[in-house]
Amino acid sequence: MEEKYKTVQILQKSQNSGVFHLILNRPSVRNALSLDFFAEFPKALHALDQNPNAAVIILSGSGDHFCAGIDLKSLNVIAGDHSGDRGRSGERLRKKIKFMQDAITAIERCRKPVIAAIHGACIGGGIDIVTACDVRYCTKDAIFSVKEVDLAITADLGTLQRLPRIVGFGNAMELALTGRRFSGEEAKELGLVSRVFGSNEELMEGVRIIAEGIGGKSPLAVRGTKEVLVRSREMSLEQGLDYVATWNSSMLLSDDLTEAISAQIHKRKPLFAKL
Amino acid sequence: MEEKYKTVQILQKSQNSGVFHLILNRPSVRNALSLDFFAEFPKALHALDQNPNAAVIILSGSGDHFCAGIDLKSLNVIAGDHSGDRGRSGERLRKKIKFMQDAITAIERCRKPVIAAIHGACIGGGIDIVTACDVRYCTKDAIFSVKEVDLAITADLGTLQRLPRIVGFGNAMELALTGRRFSGEEAKELGLVSRVFGSNEELMEGVRIIAEGIGGKSPLAVRGTKEVLVRSREMSLEQGLDYVATWNSSMLLSDDLTEAISAQIHKRKPLFAKL
Amino acid sequence: MEEKYKTVQILQKSQNSGVFHLILNRPSVRNALSLDFFAEFPKALHALDQNPNAAVIILSGSGDHFCAGIDLKSLNVIAGDHSGDRGRSGERLRKKIKFMQDAITAIERCRKPVIAAIHGACIGGGIDIVTACDVRYCTKDAIFSVKEVDLAITADLGTLQRLPRIVGFGNAMELALTGRRFSGEEAKELGLVSRVFGSNEELMEGVRIIAEGIGGKSPLAVRGTKEVLVRSREMSLEQGLDYVATWNSSMLLSDDLTEAISAQIHKRKPLFAKL
Amino acid sequence: MEEKYKTVQILQKSQNSGVFHLILNRPSVRNALSLDFFAEFPKALHALDQNPNAAVIILSGSGDHFCAGIDLKSLNVIAGDHSGDRGRSGERLRKKIKFMQDAITAIERCRKPVIAAIHGACIGGGIDIVTACDVRYCTKDAIFSVKEVDLAITADLGTLQRLPRIVGFGNAMELALTGRRFSGEEAKELGLVSRVFGSNEELMEGVRIIAEGIGGKSPLAVRGTKEVLVRSREMSLEQGLDYVATWNSSMLLSDDLTEAISAQIHKRKPLFAKL
Amino acid sequence: MEEKYKTVQILQKSQNSGVFHLILNRPSVRNALSLDFFAEFPKALHALDQNPNAAVIILSGSGDHFCAGIDLKSLNVIAGDHSGDRGRSGERLRKKIKFMQDAITAIERCRKPVIAAIHGACIGGGIDIVTACDVRYCTKDAIFSVKEVDLAITADLGTLQRLPRIVGFGNAMELALTGRRFSGEEAKELGLVSRVFGSNEELMEGVRIIAEGIGGKSPLAVRGTKEVLVRSREMSLEQGLDYVATWNSSMLLSDDLTEAISAQIHKRKPLFAKL
Amino acid sequence: MEEKYKTVQILQKSQNSGVFHLILNRPSVRNALSLDFFAEFPKALHALDQNPNAAVIILSGSGDHFCAGIDLKSLNVIAGDHSGDRGRSGERLRKKIKFMQDAITAIERCRKPVIAAIHGACIGGGIDIVTACDVRYCTKDAIFSVKEVDLAITADLGTLQRLPRIVGFGNAMELALTGRRFSGEEAKELGLVSRVFGSNEELMEGVRIIAEGIGGKSPLAVRGTKEVLVRSREMSLEQGLDYVATWNSSMLLSDDLTEAISAQIHKRKPLFAKL
Repeated sequence: MEEKYKTVQILQKSQNSGVFHLILNRPSVRNALSLDFFAEFPKALHALDQNPNAAVIILSGSGDHFCAGIDLKSLNVIAGDHSGDRGRSGERLRKKIKFMQDAITAIERCRKPVIAAIHGACIGGGIDIVTACDVRYCTKDAIFSVKEVDLAITADLGTLQRLPRIVGFGNAMELALTGRRFSGEEAKELGLVSRVFGSNEELMEGVRIIAEGIGGKSPLAVRGTKEVLVRSREMSLEQGLDYVATWNSSMLLSDDLTEAISAQIHKRKPLFAKL
Repeated sequence: MEEKYKTVQILQKSQNSGVFHLILNRPSVRNALSLDFFAEFPKALHALDQNPNAAVIILSGSGDHFCAGIDLKSLNVIAGDHSGDRGRSGERLRKKIKFMQDAITAIERCRKPVIAAIHGACIGGGIDIVTACDVRYCTKDAIFSVKEVDLAITADLGTLQRLPRIVGFGNAMELALTGRRFSGEEAKELGLVSRVFGSNEELMEGVRIIAEGIGGKSPLAVRGTKEVLVRSREMSLEQGLDYVATWNSSMLLSDDLTEAISAQIHKRKPLFAKL
Repeated sequence: MEEKYKTVQILQKSQNSGVFHLILNRPSVRNALSLDFFAEFPKALHALDQNPNAAVIILSGSGDHFCAGIDLKSLNVIAGDHSGDRGRSGERLRKKIKFMQDAITAIERCRKPVIAAIHGACIGGGIDIVTACDVRYCTKDAIFSVKEVDLAITADLGTLQRLPRIVGFGNAMELALTGRRFSGEEAKELGLVSRVFGSNEELMEGVRIIAEGIGGKSPLAVRGTKEVLVRSREMSLEQGLDYVATWNSSMLLSDDLTEAISAQIHKRKPLFAKL
Repeated sequence: MEEKYKTVQILQKSQNSGVFHLILNRPSVRNALSLDFFAEFPKALHALDQNPNAAVIILSGSGDHFCAGIDLKSLNVIAGDHSGDRGRSGERLRKKIKFMQDAITAIERCRKPVIAAIHGACIGGGIDIVTACDVRYCTKDAIFSVKEVDLAITADLGTLQRLPRIVGFGNAMELALTGRRFSGEEAKELGLVSRVFGSNEELMEGVRIIAEGIGGKSPLAVRGTKEVLVRSREMSLEQGLDYVATWNSSMLLSDDLTEAISAQIHKRKPLFAKL
Repeated sequence: MEEKYKTVQILQKSQNSGVFHLILNRPSVRNALSLDFFAEFPKALHALDQNPNAAVIILSGSGDHFCAGIDLKSLNVIAGDHSGDRGRSGERLRKKIKFMQDAITAIERCRKPVIAAIHGACIGGGIDIVTACDVRYCTKDAIFSVKEVDLAITADLGTLQRLPRIVGFGNAMELALTGRRFSGEEAKELGLVSRVFGSNEELMEGVRIIAEGIGGKSPLAVRGTKEVLVRSREMSLEQGLDYVATWNSSMLLSDDLTEAISAQIHKRKPLFAKL
Repeated sequence: MEEKYKTVQILQKSQNSGVFHLILNRPSVRNALSLDFFAEFPKALHALDQNPNAAVIILSGSGDHFCAGIDLKSLNVIAGDHSGDRGRSGERLRKKIKFMQDAITAIERCRKPVIAAIHGACIGGGIDIVTACDVRYCTKDAIFSVKEVDLAITADLGTLQRLPRIVGFGNAMELALTGRRFSGEEAKELGLVSRVFGSNEELMEGVRIIAEGIGGKSPLAVRGTKEVLVRSREMSLEQGLDYVATWNSSMLLSDDLTEAISAQIHKRKPLFAKL
């Protein structure tokens, strides 16, 4: 039943919490993103989305780094496919890029919050991944870089679309044009991460507590908050307001609401059914 | 002629300035938002919009807090209406939510700037209100929280739409998913407020000076700046540029422009007619 | 071949780098923007865009200031044209504003990065210009102000459209309504500039190094990064992802990619052909 | 309780059906639109929207014509207000136009279908009104004209926005630039009306039958169909699909669905509760 | 290798042409749409999309009708799932509707043209399907109806989004509110179908010829035409133009272009490689 | 002063009317579009836009046809440029396509109405041109074809963007995928042309009368109608309404309005100043 993956790993460290870990798991190559990864990652996320026991997902990297970006071998496979005429080769290349994009957008499609816990290097494709996550935390010594420009690549896995919504258009342009490194502290100042931890241990402990906090809330409200925020990002303000009104006309009146109000009144911890 | 309100109060502290105060006025319940509030608040704003003597509006809370959010009683009234079938009850609920949303969007519809002066708690529905304001200031000890998720509610009065435009998408997601408290200082770092004051007295005095500053400027330019910023938020860059060109083809050539240039040249304070 | 301009100057300080300087060149009036400027500026940018030797453009002001905004004389010419009926005069005014807007949008249309190096005053129209630039740096003692409201003008050359995308909607509203001055340090905190330098010399030296860094990268990737960021700003996330996939299906497979990968492997500096 | 109107009339011809008539009622001036009309029309529509007995609204004109457009007297009042400077007068004029637009958009805001039954002249402002209606029928000898251009006016009450969505962009441009008259038959070919009737009697009888048909359907489904069509017009396809899925997650499961399925199975007429 | 489907059938009637038939294959229930259909249909389309021998797909119904809409049994399964609280049940229902929507949108995602050949009844869900097809043809005696409103349902599988883009907003509203039947001839007048054939035999023969015509064209140009039309529908005109320029910068220069020009010059039939 | 063009000709047949003719003028090659054309056409349109004597422009083809599309020689020049690597060649190709697109979009940028008078063949690039015109008329024996697909080209000069807005999405897809010929009569049924004339003489005479009719109207209202229709096409309904309200706050109150009302009252022909 538990599918085995080559590039990622799913772990539930504590049985009782709804917190699951999704781990980039090729530490020997600093979790560089291979073609296998792009096939396995969305499958793993889909499995977690369907798993009623999973409430929150922590995404991290095994070993000393979060992610070194796309691995050169995969890039060579993609870049080296020159068969057929230029039109056909272009059509094929576009399909491959969209396939890789979809793997990363799977994070947004997942109904449950995905929290990135970043330590060490988070480079190129690593940025594509964490900008698609819902919340980001990192260690003090984390190193970030929108590196694609140094490989002569216009970043095409989401950074150029998602980073400006997170750090502002000006900051995104500067980071993407220079490809310069920036630290965990600067990531915090830019709004890319929500908090900086002193060490990897503190990071994992801190993120676990936050994740358990979210995992203890109404899964219906958590899921609604994520979906409505993601959808409203693409809508006019008026459309976004109308959307959430329609959403809540369906989802507001639940056992969770009754339970939350009752818990509030009796000053006890609420207990919600799984989604 | 002066309408009496149960939940808000309109005050003009100094006769000569165009600064009016709109005060959330149920201090005994920390200005929690009742159904009455949602009916009265847009009426009060409309009255101020129509009042030629009003140039700027300061929104604050009476007592020790700005606003504790929607009051549980009102929430119970909304949540408790189960009459009729699920479709009809959903339709009714959607209408109620849109009615409450409209009350808050009235801040953006008001042609005159609305400045939030926030002290104490600004929780849940309080965030919905201040994110709809044009400028926000707070005290050092103000406490903010996007609290809805803890009531098992997907926030539906504007926070999920407006907060990301103010603090960035990543910060908004983190605050909305965790519901955690944050201070006035952090609100400043996030870009939610423009300045933090040491005490409530300093806040009210500081905001008064800023409001009088805006009140002394050309009402036509102030009103145009607000409207064009709000409208451009929903448009492509090219549309926004075309819109403001069209706007100014109508509004640029006014007595205010002549007066402002003349005052500039003669290094005197300009004096503008009311709008 | 080198066109002569009255209001701007094009300089290539070092022959070998692809870095060109575009200088606002009316220091006696603090580089105030005249009608001539709006005609010459886009021409100069177009020349640089077409010049294969130019890879990056640094925009700065000669003398003690970056730019004092639109000059009052030009404003008077525009404001003083009352011939014909109000409808026709409005139509003419709209055309003039759009002509001036186009001059500034030329920065975004230029395929090559334009970096603003700001010292001294950057007021009114100066803000319109720098918000259209791709990256912004300034000195510690730079002074910024969205000044138009004090001239009884709704800012119509781009600030109200571009500033919110850079510093967030709330900050933009506050700066535009109050017209208050803010320093280089605050500009950094707001995300308006990417770094603050101690003096004008340090600024010009620092920006030169950054510009040469960008100038040494693949011109195809630099140009793609700028265009895709600018285009994605107006699109939904899904559209932006599809756009960059389509872009790269055409532009990814270039000699630059081969060269960059080879340089990476052999740990040498890559060398790219001009665009 | 029944409000009296000067310019319109509300009639329920048959007590048992949910069909209400809203009649433009100034036949002596061919139902020309006065300032009173723009105040009364939205009030009448709101009253019908709130009236649980009203399921469908038929909009028609009393006398020999549907509507001759805005009356010149009202236009003179608007055009003749030259007090104050040009900026202020422009601001006032914009407000007046938006007030008149809102009166017509009230048709779309009304949850219940509004069917236009058009005979005789439907000119200028008459086109603004009928393009905001949900369905349109007319007599053979109806005469239409997007007349504003002949009054030296850029049509500003909705025709330039709504007509292209109904008859296509090319047809809308031709009709608006030439202002030419077109018949009921051509209106049918263009897709502006859904059916043409031989005489006014046949029109009113035919529309009554259609309206009763709609009035006999599930009010929840009718209201949902109108709202979703209106909202989806402004959304991308993907957004529209997501919107209706969210809508139906709230409104699909109703007594109406059970009743409709049961009636279908037992081949009887369904009976639905009022909305 | 050939997957077996319960609700649809894939046929290639002539070995040499690239024309494949996708047939709704439950004639005993007039091809009513079951839950199985929504699972199998996208799989069948995906298989055809991946099959290099397939160039064009003809979608038709076996037996006497194209499609009678969603079958009541499936609807009952969906409507009858009342387990859990209202919020959770709403969330589940939304997911199911989106799953069914995705099955139909698969037609647009398929890179190859899908041509609907419609005879007999095309009701409710049948309209959802054909409006997602690229081209539509029908017999004279075909019967169409946007029937959902008569089942007390707000149509949620695409008709309310796609029909207005095909027949105009006014026609779509009328058809959706009345649910009335309309013939093949009227479908042609409305622009819903491109041509009407006298009988089912003539329809299948005519559509075969058209499909073979498309199948003989450059697959790269056919695929580009479909994708660019679908994408441009959601974009501003300027964005659409830029998109197709970017598309063709990748796909224009192909062997197909050389072959087409050469065939044109030598007045012979071109021959293109498969995609 | 009168510039000489190689591919087009500007004619004013009657001195007193504001009607100018812009003629595609390479009859020996059926007015096929050369690279020269794409350079000269926007210049000619710009000259007419600036010429105060020109009120309306009739666009037609000299000789027996309107336009046979892009000429193969130009296509070969574009397609044959293989210098440099694939990325650079793609970048250059994209620039060329955008240059050609801009030439055609110049029709929409021209403030004055451009009326297409089409006889004989209107093929490929000819469709791109006429769909950018404001109004279209043709002869009975005109032949249209969206021909690009037969040259293995995804049409990239505007047809795929503009045609769906004119004839509906379904019709546009069918015409673009099949590339089939259609007659003047069918063009009328589709909404592509507004009227069909029996012969070229009748066409030119009929279009002259229509053009003079538009030329006699208020140039301010004609220009506003064109601009507002073109702009509203890209906006939500609410934005479009707000835009035209803002437009008219500037342009409504003109001498033209006074003149039109006075002429209406005195039942005389109005006389308007040039724009």
